[in-house]
Amino acid sequence: MVEAWARQDRLTKPRGALGRLEELSVQLAGIAGVCPPPVPAPAAVVVFAADHGVVAEGVTPWPQEVTAQMVANFVSGGAAINVLARAAGATVTVVDVGVATPLPPACDGAPHLLRRRVGAGTANLAVVAAMDVADCRTALDVGAGIAADVTGGHLSQPAAKALVTGDMGIGNTTPAAALVAAFTGLPPREVTGRGTGVDDAGLTRKVAVIERALALHAFAVADGPLATLAALGGYEIAALAGFIVGGAAAGVPVLVDGLIADAALLVAERLVPGVAARCIAGHRSVEPGAEAVLDALGLVPLLDLDLRLGEGTGACLALPLVEAAARILGEMATFDAAGVTDKDA
Amino acid sequence: MVEAWARQDRLTKPRGALGRLEELSVQLAGIAGVCPPPVPAPAAVVVFAADHGVVAEGVTPWPQEVTAQMVANFVSGGAAINVLARAAGATVTVVDVGVATPLPPACDGAPHLLRRRVGAGTANLAVVAAMDVADCRTALDVGAGIAADVTGGHLSQPAAKALVTGDMGIGNTTPAAALVAAFTGLPPREVTGRGTGVDDAGLTRKVAVIERALALHAFAVADGPLATLAALGGYEIAALAGFIVGGAAAGVPVLVDGLIADAALLVAERLVPGVAARCIAGHRSVEPGAEAVLDALGLVPLLDLDLRLGEGTGACLALPLVEAAARILGEMATFDAAGVTDKDA
Repeated sequence: MVEAWARQDRLTKPRGALGRLEELSVQLAGIAGVCPPPVPAPAAVVVFAADHGVVAEGVTPWPQEVTAQMVANFVSGGAAINVLARAAGATVTVVDVGVATPLPPACDGAPHLLRRRVGAGTANLAVVAAMDVADCRTALDVGAGIAADVTGGHLSQPAAKALVTGDMGIGNTTPAAALVAAFTGLPPREVTGRGTGVDDAGLTRKVAVIERALALHAFAVADGPLATLAALGGYEIAALAGFIVGGAAAGVPVLVDGLIADAALLVAERLVPGVAARCIAGHRSVEPGAEAVLDALGLVPLLDLDLRLGEGTGACLALPLVEAAARILGEMATFDAAGVTDKDA
Repeated sequence: MVEAWARQDRLTKPRGALGRLEELSVQLAGIAGVCPPPVPAPAAVVVFAADHGVVAEGVTPWPQEVTAQMVANFVSGGAAINVLARAAGATVTVVDVGVATPLPPACDGAPHLLRRRVGAGTANLAVVAAMDVADCRTALDVGAGIAADVTGGHLSQPAAKALVTGDMGIGNTTPAAALVAAFTGLPPREVTGRGTGVDDAGLTRKVAVIERALALHAFAVADGPLATLAALGGYEIAALAGFIVGGAAAGVPVLVDGLIADAALLVAERLVPGVAARCIAGHRSVEPGAEAVLDALGLVPLLDLDLRLGEGTGACLALPLVEAAARILGEMATFDAAGVTDKDA
């Protein structure tokens, strides 16, 4: 990273004139352990999908079968994340880690769908633990294993040089906000948002559900990050936390965005301190819980385009910026080589 | 554009969940006059380079020969804009519209360098008019002609489907800020910044030079946008204004960034009202004059990454977002087609 900063200062531009792109290039050099860092392409988007028992509390206006329907949309290539991944030259892999309703026939034999189901949706976290600890570990391992497979080129795709966290799960902003409240200590009303379209009454209900869950699972929260994740999380959130740790271990940058991925990142950082330094916040979420995580981890998102979709769309949109940062450090001419006069030389 | 909004609302995502990308897709449909709009690729970056007599006033710490040296760096492919254009799949064309010092030998026979010199640098705008009106018209025409050539595929390159404004000219933040002050009526101290590295004393000097120039050229400013541009502008700023008008006329989006391009956009909008609606602000500049233009024209930049380099780098970085917006509207599945339940249906 020291070498990367020194090189940035010799490139044919005023020092610091590429702003956050310079910082990003230095972070990439640190992640890769080499300067200049390799171009982090192609990237792999992995969308982890699962359902949530807490939808019984009326925390979302969307019916639960939309999770399964959207899995079919992902494998058919028609969802927003598919379009944005194609535009960025990234692959999309979908992982069913616990969808509650049957997947539509379009999913049969789909090549980029992995069935790694840990259960048929979590239990209702407002009443009991969302997962037992063994299932939670399994979901973490699923995510970590897929990160290893994708970066190792073991899924009939080129080895991924960057990872993008994707998520799908009707109702999943409730467990995500609950995790953020548990790990940051912030009151639920400060970290709970409208998800994809809850009204005022729905928001009040969501906050009350999370307050109830935190009281119910106070012992689990005191017990540590794994018990907290099991009590309040979801299969896709646990898998994403494992995926983030796996990506960090593989030495590739992991792009996160949105409340679900941010909650998973917070879990990952609590389980394995240091992984957040290998992550890049792709997009600022309008969800207050996402902001709380980024503040807690000192991350500043690259984009702020008012997205509130999930699926990894905001992180995927940031991929070209990350590639550009690496290429700047690797491909720009130095003052000496280009014969340009440096005012600071 | 009405059709584009209606289509956005049928795509498989909560309404509005793609935020600014949705607005951008609607703007692109309006610019192209068709829904869904064509993907705006490949893009062409055109870097207009010229020198400025006002450097005699000590408004920049960089020696004037850096303009010519950077032209050589552009044609050799080693500058930041070259790297970012390659990453975005865009071409780079460099236009000498009035560089004062001889171009280095590396420029001889360079295929993507156009020599359309209007003069050897402008006169010192603190003393006389920077250009006479005839030369100013010529520079405008150079820019408009190149926009037509690039979008028409007449430069041995594929026809450009989007344009990116690039600029190079040591000292050019002074004429740009002077134009912004003249057109917005804001006091020079509110629209003048540090450019690429002026210190406190230099900033004070810059503001004083612009105040003096505005007093000197008060009749020209009262006379209208062409006389104002001639008195206070520069060859590359005039060419950029023509380029923006030419791009708008060709029905392609024009991405702008930074103070120089923003000043040119303000000139273009004053000369041909309506062109700003076909432009996309790629990046927020730290220069106060750029902010003043965007406020005046109601544009909100897509990116805010603390860049302060110029060359069109910020606009070029935004290209993938513009392409993504078009592809979202063209390629995403609708609720009906994908068999996904719509909560608002």
